[in-house]
Amino acid sequence: MRFDASVLQRKFIALRENKLFETFVILIIVLSALVIGAKTYVIPEWSRTLLEWLDLGITLFFLVEISIRLMASDSIRAFFRNGWNVFDFTIVVASLIPLEGSETALLGRLLRIFRVLRLVAIIPELRVLLSAFLTAIPRMGYVSLLMFIIFYIYAAMGSIFFASINPELWKNISIAMLTLFRVATFEDWTDVMYETMEVYPLSWLFYLSFIFIVAFVFLNMMIGIVLETLQKEHEKLDRESGAGEAGEVHWIREHTEAMEERLERIEALLREKIRQ
Amino acid sequence: MRFDASVLQRKFIALRENKLFETFVILIIVLSALVIGAKTYVIPEWSRTLLEWLDLGITLFFLVEISIRLMASDSIRAFFRNGWNVFDFTIVVASLIPLEGSETALLGRLLRIFRVLRLVAIIPELRVLLSAFLTAIPRMGYVSLLMFIIFYIYAAMGSIFFASINPELWKNISIAMLTLFRVATFEDWTDVMYETMEVYPLSWLFYLSFIFIVAFVFLNMMIGIVLETLQKEHEKLDRESGAGEAGEVHWIREHTEAMEERLERIEALLREKIRQ
Amino acid sequence: MRFDASVLQRKFIALRENKLFETFVILIIVLSALVIGAKTYVIPEWSRTLLEWLDLGITLFFLVEISIRLMASDSIRAFFRNGWNVFDFTIVVASLIPLEGSETALLGRLLRIFRVLRLVAIIPELRVLLSAFLTAIPRMGYVSLLMFIIFYIYAAMGSIFFASINPELWKNISIAMLTLFRVATFEDWTDVMYETMEVYPLSWLFYLSFIFIVAFVFLNMMIGIVLETLQKEHEKLDRESGAGEAGEVHWIREHTEAMEERLERIEALLREKIRQ
Amino acid sequence: MRFDASVLQRKFIALRENKLFETFVILIIVLSALVIGAKTYVIPEWSRTLLEWLDLGITLFFLVEISIRLMASDSIRAFFRNGWNVFDFTIVVASLIPLEGSETALLGRLLRIFRVLRLVAIIPELRVLLSAFLTAIPRMGYVSLLMFIIFYIYAAMGSIFFASINPELWKNISIAMLTLFRVATFEDWTDVMYETMEVYPLSWLFYLSFIFIVAFVFLNMMIGIVLETLQKEHEKLDRESGAGEAGEVHWIREHTEAMEERLERIEALLREKIRQ
Repeated sequence: MRFDASVLQRKFIALRENKLFETFVILIIVLSALVIGAKTYVIPEWSRTLLEWLDLGITLFFLVEISIRLMASDSIRAFFRNGWNVFDFTIVVASLIPLEGSETALLGRLLRIFRVLRLVAIIPELRVLLSAFLTAIPRMGYVSLLMFIIFYIYAAMGSIFFASINPELWKNISIAMLTLFRVATFEDWTDVMYETMEVYPLSWLFYLSFIFIVAFVFLNMMIGIVLETLQKEHEKLDRESGAGEAGEVHWIREHTEAMEERLERIEALLREKIRQ
Repeated sequence: MRFDASVLQRKFIALRENKLFETFVILIIVLSALVIGAKTYVIPEWSRTLLEWLDLGITLFFLVEISIRLMASDSIRAFFRNGWNVFDFTIVVASLIPLEGSETALLGRLLRIFRVLRLVAIIPELRVLLSAFLTAIPRMGYVSLLMFIIFYIYAAMGSIFFASINPELWKNISIAMLTLFRVATFEDWTDVMYETMEVYPLSWLFYLSFIFIVAFVFLNMMIGIVLETLQKEHEKLDRESGAGEAGEVHWIREHTEAMEERLERIEALLREKIRQ
Repeated sequence: MRFDASVLQRKFIALRENKLFETFVILIIVLSALVIGAKTYVIPEWSRTLLEWLDLGITLFFLVEISIRLMASDSIRAFFRNGWNVFDFTIVVASLIPLEGSETALLGRLLRIFRVLRLVAIIPELRVLLSAFLTAIPRMGYVSLLMFIIFYIYAAMGSIFFASINPELWKNISIAMLTLFRVATFEDWTDVMYETMEVYPLSWLFYLSFIFIVAFVFLNMMIGIVLETLQKEHEKLDRESGAGEAGEVHWIREHTEAMEERLERIEALLREKIRQ
Repeated sequence: MRFDASVLQRKFIALRENKLFETFVILIIVLSALVIGAKTYVIPEWSRTLLEWLDLGITLFFLVEISIRLMASDSIRAFFRNGWNVFDFTIVVASLIPLEGSETALLGRLLRIFRVLRLVAIIPELRVLLSAFLTAIPRMGYVSLLMFIIFYIYAAMGSIFFASINPELWKNISIAMLTLFRVATFEDWTDVMYETMEVYPLSWLFYLSFIFIVAFVFLNMMIGIVLETLQKEHEKLDRESGAGEAGEVHWIREHTEAMEERLERIEALLREKIRQ
């Protein structure tokens, strides 16, 4: 899509880099979000028509805007190598698909909601935030796996023993897992427990052990991810700026190295002197 | 308002600086809080009259006190340059406005409640605490924005799909956001879920993903702010006192610098010696 | 109470120091706890009589044991200078008071429950734990004060506006504070909110702002105390053992000091040499 | 069980070490978990028969697999010295026991559920995770003891005072402890409180103090364990890699030591020189 009219491309790049244009795009995204929100209210017919027109305008604007971005890049390949561009492009194109009929119209509205996510793709600080989250999560994958195993074992036990007591809650293993998630959030968990305790008086052991294990693993996972992310970010910042404790330690390390070299020179000089 | 009677001003400054006077003001604020509290009880007529008189007395005392502070300062401008003084002054003046009639009397009572906040303006330790909070919050602004976007998207989806199931909870996007906040606090969230699962059996995915994302972002935000604030406070204290790990690292850094200079001198001396 | 029979005292000291005796005392305290627990069950008459005799036996044993401790100390004053001894002595003596009659018998049983707390006074690890907690709490006193002010202001507002809607929950400021504590624990808080939203549609602002502020301050207080306590404990341990990061930093600091002195000597030697 | 046919043993070792074989075992465990899950659904007769056969196949496969592991080890003693092997072996053997009859068949199904735990024994990352948890827990044993003491004292008080109000919740000390656990999770705790407040209007003090103490101790325990585990893991990693702050501090320490030795040599040389 490399236009020979490179003058045009340079203009597009200038436009893309323009702070005012960026702010304008952000405002249009916010407007798009407001239109989505407004549609959920019961509103008179004329304003509904207005919203439809606004929606069409926004869709067209996004189409033009993403085209400008695409043309401003060196090549189509370079554009799509950036994950955020792919994300952005998919959202814009998906909301373009004309969907009619009661069923698919719903899907169309759904796709338009995700346009709010374009904010994340455009505002750099939100990008950084999301990247930090995404990089931290896989490291905790094994903790999640452990948690899933715990849920699975308890759900299997629950559905074997309690299915006859209350099929609504313990019918099969997937329903039982949902019930256990409910117990883990402490939502009316005593009602669930008292019911089974009438048949199995010791079943409180089942619930208490589950709550302790899950609370422990969950908290571990959450706090672990947060601290991990924060600490890495901090140390990086400190090292770069040379401020803070980590920065000072780094400074000391470098200067200790310099001092050692100097001392080596001094010792060599002295030995030379003596030999004279 | 600079009085030529500078003798009077010096007296006001002495009074403002007086520890006993400060304690007295704090006691009056606490009394003011108690009066507000007492009024919410059903009490006999005579004590109600007493409370009215007490209230008037407190209002007058605050007026006199803030005047003393104002006159004790170098100039009106200097007084209002301090944010805490503006805060303090606004509270005192607002509760002065005479409000009669059933409607406005309520507003008058409301304004008097905020006089308790004067404690924060007067006790230095509370000021420090509040400052720390206020400086920490904006840094987390983008996290809050991310959280709002998540709420908005889920609320839009919720009101599109579930509005016909239970209009009470999902009527429009703002009602849906309130319902989602309820889900985020685990308050009877399973009732909300079971209701929609009857129509959309897979809607548990909606709730579970929402809970995971929000719990994660929220915890991140909270723990992040707290740790940030604590750590900065700590490092500052440690550096100033020279105690603790950060303090020792700072000490080492400075002394490493001194040592390097000394080594430079020694090397220069040695080289000079050899050249001789 | 210094016995001239110092031989007897030495025996008491030996007994007090004896590991076996300590274990025996701990077992008796646990037995005392079990007796208290057993009494809450519906049990046959004969075992109730047995428990009464056991209770008497434990009371007498504790009396003898505390007397041994008292006599084993240098003087009564020295004994009571230790806070844990005062705590221990008070618990033992309080449970000695003969209480008859239906009303006071209850108090007697209550006082016996607190004998379980003797475990804390006797097991050193629990003492350390409790000391750490107690020293950490006052540091957070101002945070608690801030939290109380927030509760007070919201409770005053709540009782002014909502008292007529539901007197059960908002009758006066103290009832309103209890209701707000309930809201803070997310316990059926939406029921409280929906009720007031029928009269004041914007009252969700009241609840949401309250939840955010309290959750933030509370988490801050809790995590702050925990981290504070842990960190201090750690640094102390690290510094003493010389291990860990803080220990190494301390080692470096001390050795940097020694190196500086040596460098000073070297420079002096060199200058002397040159002057020769 | 040391086979003279050492060729066979070498083949078994090769098989055990084989990455493909490990993946296959993991897949079989996951399949075993799925079979357990599938059985909790209401399914047609023929698929039930299929599941039975699959179950038998898995049981036999596990028997063969554990035999291979056993034979691949140097000796039976060496095999059982590793705790994970004992854990693994017990699970496999326990699910072998033929259990017929409605009562014992339930136990048989239960034992098969625990086969999912084999995942933990086989995937090294999960092993490390579980080891970290297990080593961290005992260190917090005294905190748990303190928490139990608190629960015990409050439960004793509760069952003495409130047993006559609601025997369902406060009948005896063990029921009261369960009720208090419910209060600690904020599950309908206000219902429990309002009930007793009708008889003892001040009983909110009982609940509020309990919630504060337990929340504090519990959070302390949880966060403490997590941070402890994370920090140790980190410092170990940092020290080994020499990266991060702790790694740099370690580097500085070692080089400071080297510098000191060099300085000592320099001073000795200088003194020698002067003496010449």
